[in-house]
This record gives sequence, structure tokens and C-alpha cells, in this order.
Amino acid sequence: MNTRQRVRLLVDAPAFQRVIIAVILVNALALGCETSPTLMAHHGWLLHAVDRAALAVFTVEIAARLYAHGWRFFRDPWNCFDAVIVGVSLLPTTGTFGVLRALRVLRVLRLISAVPNMRRVVGALLTAVPGMASIAALLVLILYVGSVIGTKLFGHIAPEYFGDLGDSLFTLFQVMTGEAWSEVARSVMEDEPLAWVFFVAYIAVTTFTVLNLFIAVAVSAMESQISEERDDSAETVQQLLGEVRGLRAELRELRAEVGGAPTSVRP
Amino acid sequence: MNTRQRVRLLVDAPAFQRVIIAVILVNALALGCETSPTLMAHHGWLLHAVDRAALAVFTVEIAARLYAHGWRFFRDPWNCFDAVIVGVSLLPTTGTFGVLRALRVLRVLRLISAVPNMRRVVGALLTAVPGMASIAALLVLILYVGSVIGTKLFGHIAPEYFGDLGDSLFTLFQVMTGEAWSEVARSVMEDEPLAWVFFVAYIAVTTFTVLNLFIAVAVSAMESQISEERDDSAETVQQLLGEVRGLRAELRELRAEVGGAPTSVRP
Amino acid sequence: MNTRQRVRLLVDAPAFQRVIIAVILVNALALGCETSPTLMAHHGWLLHAVDRAALAVFTVEIAARLYAHGWRFFRDPWNCFDAVIVGVSLLPTTGTFGVLRALRVLRVLRLISAVPNMRRVVGALLTAVPGMASIAALLVLILYVGSVIGTKLFGHIAPEYFGDLGDSLFTLFQVMTGEAWSEVARSVMEDEPLAWVFFVAYIAVTTFTVLNLFIAVAVSAMESQISEERDDSAETVQQLLGEVRGLRAELRELRAEVGGAPTSVRP
Amino acid sequence: MNTRQRVRLLVDAPAFQRVIIAVILVNALALGCETSPTLMAHHGWLLHAVDRAALAVFTVEIAARLYAHGWRFFRDPWNCFDAVIVGVSLLPTTGTFGVLRALRVLRVLRLISAVPNMRRVVGALLTAVPGMASIAALLVLILYVGSVIGTKLFGHIAPEYFGDLGDSLFTLFQVMTGEAWSEVARSVMEDEPLAWVFFVAYIAVTTFTVLNLFIAVAVSAMESQISEERDDSAETVQQLLGEVRGLRAELRELRAEVGGAPTSVRP
Repeated sequence: MNTRQRVRLLVDAPAFQRVIIAVILVNALALGCETSPTLMAHHGWLLHAVDRAALAVFTVEIAARLYAHGWRFFRDPWNCFDAVIVGVSLLPTTGTFGVLRALRVLRVLRLISAVPNMRRVVGALLTAVPGMASIAALLVLILYVGSVIGTKLFGHIAPEYFGDLGDSLFTLFQVMTGEAWSEVARSVMEDEPLAWVFFVAYIAVTTFTVLNLFIAVAVSAMESQISEERDDSAETVQQLLGEVRGLRAELRELRAEVGGAPTSVRP
Repeated sequence: MNTRQRVRLLVDAPAFQRVIIAVILVNALALGCETSPTLMAHHGWLLHAVDRAALAVFTVEIAARLYAHGWRFFRDPWNCFDAVIVGVSLLPTTGTFGVLRALRVLRVLRLISAVPNMRRVVGALLTAVPGMASIAALLVLILYVGSVIGTKLFGHIAPEYFGDLGDSLFTLFQVMTGEAWSEVARSVMEDEPLAWVFFVAYIAVTTFTVLNLFIAVAVSAMESQISEERDDSAETVQQLLGEVRGLRAELRELRAEVGGAPTSVRP
Repeated sequence: MNTRQRVRLLVDAPAFQRVIIAVILVNALALGCETSPTLMAHHGWLLHAVDRAALAVFTVEIAARLYAHGWRFFRDPWNCFDAVIVGVSLLPTTGTFGVLRALRVLRVLRLISAVPNMRRVVGALLTAVPGMASIAALLVLILYVGSVIGTKLFGHIAPEYFGDLGDSLFTLFQVMTGEAWSEVARSVMEDEPLAWVFFVAYIAVTTFTVLNLFIAVAVSAMESQISEERDDSAETVQQLLGEVRGLRAELRELRAEVGGAPTSVRP
Repeated sequence: MNTRQRVRLLVDAPAFQRVIIAVILVNALALGCETSPTLMAHHGWLLHAVDRAALAVFTVEIAARLYAHGWRFFRDPWNCFDAVIVGVSLLPTTGTFGVLRALRVLRVLRLISAVPNMRRVVGALLTAVPGMASIAALLVLILYVGSVIGTKLFGHIAPEYFGDLGDSLFTLFQVMTGEAWSEVARSVMEDEPLAWVFFVAYIAVTTFTVLNLFIAVAVSAMESQISEERDDSAETVQQLLGEVRGLRAELRELRAEVGGAPTSVRP
């Protein structure tokens, strides 16, 4: 058994997985504590140490798994997910990359790839995405068209909501979620009393589309459940059909044996 | 091959469709840029030129398709949709028709008719509409009755919400979407403490009705899915029944061959 | 044919129903116009006249139907609904019954009982109610318990929301609909930082219960649809089972005819 | 019949259950009245007396049931629920345990365990919980990660929403319920215009996850309904398969009887 095989046995061992999960949890806790100025003032060095230690463990882990499995490592999308998350943490966090410091917490999402149950749930969620793509594209189209219209019609009336295309897109996304839309609509309607037509039409169309998006997801989830059971049932029926056909063939043979002649020429 | 057939081959070619989709996307982008005063100040002439060029392309396209297919062109509702949208853009946009300028962006909706996948999604959405008509009518009835009651009871208490029938209709539509209803109710309840009865009853009734509207759409979507599969299953079972009946007929013939006489007169 | 039979023929005629629907719609329009002070100032006498005429028509209609069908009239709940709505309109509307003036608009709801399609939709909605009763009772229980706790804990902190039991019930109904709950919670949390436990627990429990209420309605709607189709399918399978059993019986008879003796004593 | 058996007959009698339900309802009413300062000023001693009497009844009841059923009493989780709720009421309510006074109202929840219908509904609700555990854990993970990121990025911009990890967790729970999220987002976006990326991404991810949580509950509710009916159907089909196989076996025996020899060596 060469080194590579030994490493593979090590990284695939359940105990190794459990250690990694523990490190992720400790790291998550440390990252949470880092948000407290008080804790940072007193135990900042400890929290940083934990964070660096966790990052070191993750880097060694990814390197070990990469060494153990070679390029096949990247065939599993979850491995790519792990590699990207750890890779992002290794980038310098000074200067223009300051926002990346905050993204270090994404490392906690490695829990998803580390716990098989989570992996399964997220996998199931992701299978619902392709079926939503068309309706989601339609929704984006409606959002864009609504925003251009909104900017042109209401841009000068309510600049805080419809000042430019970006504002309008945000406002209409907000209206789509049904959040404080009446506030937006009432502030526009003060100057343009007919604006209710725009808002009511927009809400009716987007609610209906979002509803159908949800139903599409629900139906496909239920359908896959039902058709699975239906396959079992269809199999039994096919089996039954085979039995009956076999029966008929045997009966024909029997008739041939008994009569030896077609019905019409019976003695 | 006469000119009409050549034009038909041209307008039905996938490449032609792709060119039209590209023009729609470029036009959409230009319409979006037109909302920015900065961009308009520097590149206004370009954006207008793109817009006019796109409109010219669409006009020629519709004319060509109309020439190619003759009056059958209007049999497909999507063609009518295209024609109306392009037709609206050709109307003069000065004076009282100023709002039509903003509606030019509806041209972007031609993406729906141009991309087959979008067409299918919207078609599926529209099939859900007839099943909703009765419940939607009921909802409008409740909204109207609620608004007349609201105007009479609360018109003098909260004129900003229930001042006239139009205000009440808007306010109760807002309450139906669950948006900021507590603000409306609390401002009315300051003067009329019993108003909570109206709001709670209205919310209970409309929520229940809207819920059933949604369920009706979901059930019909699921049902069409299930009954499709069920038809396959029912067909197999019918096939099976046919087999078994054939078998029984053959068995009877066999008995006739063997015995030639009813059971009671066996030798 | 006596008078009663003639009246019955009249009131059950489709044309009579259509006239009533027309009167309801005209009445609805008049009631809507009555909410406008301008219209009332100029055409008030006309609107009142239309309203009185419609009420007269309805009174005569109910009386005629009552005369035609006798006491069986009250067996149909829709007839009771009509009678109560018209009866309420006949009560004096002065003095303490002032609120009844506003309730005259409920007459518009007679559209539901007059249009068969509406009747069917509302009937379908009402069949969902009994299945919801238990969960709705549970929700009321949670609301009551939450309100008593809320009044005791937060009554002195946020008297506008939790001042007395009535305020708390209204506030927690509002929180249950998810409306502006963060405003309520944040105003309480200013003085009682741990109040988030109460709000988060309450929202989690009620959302989960309401969700299950909705699912119960959806499942029962879908189930009745599915089991209907399933009954057809089960019938075919039962038919098949009958055929196969008949076949087996015939085969046994054939064996008896052919062999006349049990298998073991074959010559 | 010894004392224990007599007590058991008593506590299991429907009449005894009805008395307990009546006591719970009276106690609920008294607890509600206790929230009113006016009622407390005039009838405070009565309300306290009712409360103490009810508590005495419940204590005796639990003791009797414990005596009657012995340790098996604790095998039924509903009994444990009753015992805990009554036990909490017996704790001293002075000093640091002041909050427990408010929790006495939880006794009203004993209605759930006392009314069989309620027990069934809550039991059904609880069966849905395990299937939600994985997605709920995922949601908590997203909430935690979002809160750490939110605190780091927006803590200094909007301290009222993202001041520390606790604030952020509350704010993002609020955003998850879709409540006043635009207010939060707009106040952050004043200083950090790109913050919309965070909010839109967070809303998209949590809405999608919550939606799938709901669908999972709905699908499992529907599935258990469907698979029950399907089991009946599958049983009939299995029965049918058995019949057909029996038939085939009999046919083979018949052939053996008739021919006594394989097909190929028939005379």
C-alpha cells in the first residue's frame, strides 16, 4: 500500500470527517465571536488564532484529498465547492479585497458539504432549479420592462423610488415581494392618481407568475414522488400482462394438443 | 417557387428568428439606457437611432410575415400580440399620447413570442386563467361590497383611506395583499374601536378565498399531470382486460371442442 | 293549474332569474354611486328611488318564491341566505340601527345565490371549512394564550399594542398575518430585550399551524379529485378480478369434464 | 376491586374528562379577566380564588392519574405534557421567577391534551416536524452566516439593525419573514449602495428554502394520503396476480392430465 492509498484511507474515514465537522463548528463559533468588539478587545488574539488554525486544517485537508484522489477530486461538485471556499479564504484580505474578510464566514457553509444529510437536502433543492429557469427568466423580463416604464413615468414624481433604472429595479423587486408596496404606490399616486393601474397590474401579473413558479416546484416534487410509486405499480401490471399472455399461449398449445385441428374441421 | 413562398421560407428560418431575438435584446438595452439622463445627454442620438432601427426591423418583419402567411397570420394569437405591440409603437407619441412613449418598452415583451420556451411557459400560465375566473369574480364582488361598506362607515373617519369609492377599492386591495393593513385598521380604530370586526372579517374571507384560488390552480396543474399518467395506466389495464376476455373465449371454445355438450349432459 | 303552480313556473323560469340578476347589478351600481357626495347632491333622489325599487322587487320575489314553494323554501340554505339579506334591508335604519344602512350593500351578495356558477364556487369553498375547524380552533387557542401572556408581560411596556386583552388579541392577530410585526417587536424589545423569544416562538408556531391549515385544505381538495379517478380505476381492476375468477371456475369445470377424477387417480 | 382500580375507572371516565375540560375553560376565562385592571380591582379575590381552585383540581387530577396508572403514566407524552404544565404552576412565583406568573396561562394549553380532536390535530402537526429538521437546520445555518456577514459589513452603518450578532440575527429573521425588509435595506443602502446584492441574494435563497420547506411538508402529507390508497390498489393487483398464476398452474395440470406427455412427443 503506497502513500497515496494510505492518505485516501485517512481522508475517507468517518472519523476524519467528524474531526473536520468539529473544526468547522469551532471556526463558526470563533467567527461569530469576532463580531463582538468586547470579545475582540479581550480575546482577539485567541479568535484570530482559532481562525488561522481552522484555515490551516482546511488547507491541509483539501490538499490531502486532492493528493489522494488526483484530478478526479474535481469531478464531485461538492469538492469544487470546498476548494473554492477555502481558496477564497487564502486570498490577501487587505486593501481592495477588504470585503473578502467578511466572506471568510462562508467557510461555515462547508458544513453543508461535510454533513451527508445537508448535502442531500441541498442537492434536492438544486434539482428544483432547472424547472424554475423559464419562469424565473419571465419574471426578470417583467421586472425589467416594469422598471423601464416606471422610471419613465414616475422618475420625476418619486425619485427616491424610481430615480434611475437601478432604483426602479430595486423598488419593483420590493413590490414583487409585497413589501411596503402601498407606501410606494401612495407616494406616486399623490401626483399621478392613475398610477394605481400600473401597480395593480404589476402586482397581479407578478403574483400570478410567482405563484405558478411555486406550483411548478411543488408539482415536480410531488410528481417525482408519485411517478416513482407508479413505476412499481406499472411493473406489477406489466408482469400480470406477461402472465396472462403466457397463459393464453399455453391454452392455445393445449387446444392444439387436444384437437390437433382448427375449430372448423372438428370431427 | 414564387416570391410569397420565398418570403415564407425566409421568415420561418431559425436564423431569421435568432436575428429578431438579437434585435429585441439590443432594443431592450437601448430602452434601458434611455432612462439615464447622463447617457441620453451624451449618446441620445445613438439610442434614438437604435430604437428607430429596431422599430423599422420589426415593422418590416411583421409586414413580411403578413405577406408570407396572408390572413392566416392572425390565426396564431402570438402573431396578433406581435402586431399589436409593433402597431402601438408606430402611433404618434406626441401630445395626449405621451404615455405611449413609455409603452414602447412593451416591445421587449416580444421576447416572449420570439423564444419558443417562453411562449410555452406563458401558454401554460394562461391555461390556468379560465379555472380562476369564477373565484376571481367572487373576489372582485367581495372587494366591491367591502369598499361600499368601508366608504360609508369609515369615509369621514379616515378620508385618506376610505374617502371615496376609488380610495376604498385601493385600500381594500392593499389589505387583501396583507400590506400595511394594521396601519389602516389602527388609524380607523382610533375613532371607531369596533372597526376591527370589519378588518378581521374581511381579511379572513379574502385570505381564505385567495388561498382557494391558489389551490385551484395547483390542483388543476397537478391533476393534468396525474391524469396523463393515469391514462397510460388505464390503457394497460384495459389491454389486460382484453387479454383475459380473449382467454376466456378461447377456453369456452376448447370446452366446446372437448365436450361438445353442456356440463349437465356429459357422458 | 292553480295559482301556486303558475307562480312556481314564473319564479323558476331562467328569464325571471336573469331579471333578478339585472336588478341586483343595477342596485349594486346605485349603492356604489351613493358613496359619492357629488352624485348624491345632484341625483340623490334617483339613487334612493333605484334602491327602493330594487328592494321592492326583492321583497316581492322572496314573497313569491315563499308562496310558490311553501315551507320547503327554507330547506335550501341559499334561499335562507336570500331571505335574511332582504329581511335585514327591511329593518328600520334610523337610530341605533344606523350601521344597518351600510349593510344594505350586502344585497349585492345575492349575486352569489343568483348566478349558478358563483353558487358552485362558494359551495366548494364552504366544503373546505369543516376540515379546517380543528386547526382553526387550535389557532384561536394559541392566539388567546399568547394574548394573555403578552398583556401580562408587555402591557406596561407597550400599552398601544398590549394595553388590554383586546389590544393584545388584535396585535397578535396582526403578527399572525406577518404584518408590521417587527415594529411591534422592536418597540417592546427597547425595554425588554428578551421579548424576541416570545415573538419568534409565536411566529414560528402560528406560521407552522397556518401552513398546515392551508396544506389540509389543499390535500383534501386534491384527494377528492384523485380518489374520484381512483374509483374508476379500482372498478376496472375489480372487473378484471371477476373475469379472471370466472375463467378459473370455467377451467375447473373443464378439468372435471375432461378427467372426471382428481389428479391423483388419473388412469 | 381495589382502590387503585376504582381511581382508574374514575379518571378514565368521559364524565371526569368533561369536568376537567370545564375547569380548564373556566380557568382560561379567569386568567383572561385577570389582565383587566378594572376587573382585578373589583373581583380580584374571586379571580385568584378561581385560579387556585383550578390549580388544586389539576393537581389532584394529575396525582389521581399518577396513582391510578403508576409509572406507565409517563409513557404517554400527553401525560408528561400535563404534568409539566401543572408542575410549573406549582413553583413559587415570587422574585426571579416572576415571569412564571405569566406562564400560568399555559395551563389553558391543557385543552389540547384534554380534547381528543385537538390531540389528534396536534399529533398530526408534530409528525410533520422530523421531515422539516434538515431544511430547518439549513435555514438556521444560512441565518447565522448571513448575520455574521451582515454584522461585519453593515454593523457600523446601521447599528440599530446590525449592531451586534444578536441584532443581526433578529433583523435577518425579520427579513426572512419578508417584514419591512425594504426599510432595513434602504437604510443600509444610503451608505453602502451595493448592499442590495446582499439583501436580494439573502431573500432569494431563504424564500426558495422556506418554499421548499413548505412543499416538503405538503408533499409528505399528500404522499401519506396517496400511498395509503395506493396500498389498497396494489393489494388488489397482487391478488389478481395470484389468481392468474393459480390459473396457469391449473392449466398446466390439465395439460398433464390430457396429454400426459410433452408437446413434442404427442402420439
